[in-house]
Parts: sequence; C-alpha cells; structure tokens
Amino acid sequence: VSRPRQEIREAILTTARKLFARYGISRVTMNEIAREMRMGKSSLYHYYSGKEDLFQAVLEKEAQIFRSRIEAAVEEASSPAEKLRAYGINRMKSIKDLANVFVAFRDDYLRHYAFIRRLREQYDRYEVETVAGILRRGVADGAFSIASIELTAVAVATALKGFEYDWAISMTEEEIERNLDMLADLLVNGIARRECSP
Amino acid sequence: VSRPRQEIREAILTTARKLFARYGISRVTMNEIAREMRMGKSSLYHYYSGKEDLFQAVLEKEAQIFRSRIEAAVEEASSPAEKLRAYGINRMKSIKDLANVFVAFRDDYLRHYAFIRRLREQYDRYEVETVAGILRRGVADGAFSIASIELTAVAVATALKGFEYDWAISMTEEEIERNLDMLADLLVNGIARRECSP
Repeated sequence: VSRPRQEIREAILTTARKLFARYGISRVTMNEIAREMRMGKSSLYHYYSGKEDLFQAVLEKEAQIFRSRIEAAVEEASSPAEKLRAYGINRMKSIKDLANVFVAFRDDYLRHYAFIRRLREQYDRYEVETVAGILRRGVADGAFSIASIELTAVAVATALKGFEYDWAISMTEEEIERNLDMLADLLVNGIARRECSP
Repeated sequence: VSRPRQEIREAILTTARKLFARYGISRVTMNEIAREMRMGKSSLYHYYSGKEDLFQAVLEKEAQIFRSRIEAAVEEASSPAEKLRAYGINRMKSIKDLANVFVAFRDDYLRHYAFIRRLREQYDRYEVETVAGILRRGVADGAFSIASIELTAVAVATALKGFEYDWAISMTEEEIERNLDMLADLLVNGIARRECSP
C-alpha cells in the first residue's frame, strides 16, 4: 500500500527540517535526505525539485504554523483590546522562534534573500490585514472608535516590525510581554491624561 | 581684506550645492567649483579635501536646516499634543524635500551608502530624543500620562520612519498633514470609545 503523496511530502519536510537544524543547510545534501527517508534519490526529486525548493517548503511550513498559533491566540482572547495584545505578543514570540530556527539552520541566509523577502512581504500584508480585522471587529462591537482603520493598522504593523529585530535578539519573553502590554495600552487609551475611564 | 574662513566655507557650500543640483554630482568637478568661486583649485582644497568631503558637508547643512525648521515648528506649537503633530508634519515634509534634493543631485547615492547611513543613524537618535523630549514636557505639564516615555518615543519614531518612504513618493503635503492629524490623535487619545473627553 503506498502512502498518499501529501503525506510523503510532509514526512520529507519533517526529515529535512531535522537534518537542516542538526547539520546546517549547506552541509545537508538531497542524497542524505533521501537516505534518511529510505527512498531513492530520484523518488525524492519526484516530490521536491531540489534543496532550495525543500528549504522554501520548510520555511513556508514554519510560517504556516506561526500564523495558526497567532490566530488561535487572537481567537481565544475575549475583548478587542485583549485580541490586539494577544496578536502582538504571539507575533513577537513567533519572530523570536523563527530567529532561533535561522540560527539552527546556520545558513548564510542572504543567499536566499529574494525568497526570504517574498515570504516577508507576504507576512507584512497578512499582518496589516490581521490587525485591521481586529480593529474592525472592535469598531463593530462598539469598543473602538477609529478615524482610519487602514492607517491605524499600518502604523501598528510598522511599529511592531520596527521593534522585532532588537526584541528578538535582546529580550526575554517576559520583557516582550511587558512591553507589549504597554504598547497595547498606548494604542487603546492614548497618552492624554484624563480623570474618567473608558 | 580677506574674508574669515568660516564665511568662505559657507560660500563654497552654497556654490557646490547649486552646481550639484544643476548638473548632478558626478558631472561636477572640483575645478568647476573653484572656477565658479573665482578661486584657485589649490585654495579650494585648502577648505575641502575633495568632492566627497564637500558633498558630505552639503548634506550635513541640509540636515541642519531641516532640524532647525522642525525645532522652530515644535517650539511655536502651544500644547504638547500640538507639538507632537508639528513634529510629525515638519519631519515628513523635510523628508519629502530631502528626497527632492537627492533627485536634483541625480546621483547613484548608493555609492555613498556608508556615509548616508551614518547621517541616517544620527537622525534616528535625534528623532527618538526629540519625541521623548516632547512627551516628557507633556508629562511635566500634566497633559500626558505615559507608562514608558522611551518605549513610546521609539514606537512613534519607528512608525514615522516606516511611513516616510511611501509618503514622500506618493502623497501631497495636504495628504501628509491629514494623516499626521489622525496619527497624532491616535497617539493622544487612543482608539477606545469613550463618552467623556480628556
């Protein structure tokens, strides 16, 4: 009985990811991946056209896992403000994990720059849409009042992106959470001093 | 009677800037700048060590003019919220002007990348400090209430930097002002819907 194609592709991804993380991308060959999978090299090429293709698929799967995790956290949060906070925290933690994945792959990833940049652009669009979605639901709920949802979403996404590099490198998860708490409060309540509460 | 050194340096800058803008940097020589100044080439080198040095001085002067303009606008604005808005608007207009200066110089400015990047890093630090200063005065006045001035200043600076490229290219000054109005309101009042006013 032969396993379905999709299932085999998944198994190859899992194996490739494991080998990339253990030895570094440049030191893993398609031959070794085939051997580890107990399949012929030509069978492997039947599923992925080369190491670059496989690497791309591994990263896309990482990105997909990250998006699912973020979406689950946003879904779970109860209020619109909590959803914003959950988005920011999980997005930053995911970036931190992704940075660790890159370190594990020990690759000069600039070689893959065009491809990484494409993934990044996709994520940037996804981020603006996701934040805009949370804001829109908040307005519909009557929790938020926003002059321009688009501008606000882009501002939030831009600020988060600007912080991510330093944070992923130099902050613990607790520090990231604390900063995100402050930023979410900043966005929701602003900086004007007022006597009354919302 | 010989003019003081500083005055001559200023006159050379003005002349160089004019020639750079008219012909493009790569097509202007130190010889031509000397001729336009009615001074010998060796005298010119007495003031600036070369075209690169002169170009750098021209840009530093532009940057200085921009900072003065921004500071005057911030000083003139009456309330802390108005100061934030004035900072953002003048900062964005200055970037738009700077982009036009680059177009006028018609230079492949990537050749000067290290130098431009240094100027940019200086400006980034200046921006965070300036915004932090406005926030700090607002807190001292009792107008603002801010959990972390540093984090807030970096968030504002990061968002502004993220917007600048698209805005400088695609927006009119009126559109920039309208967006900055919304962003300043976002920062001051937040997005929470409330019945009472600050």
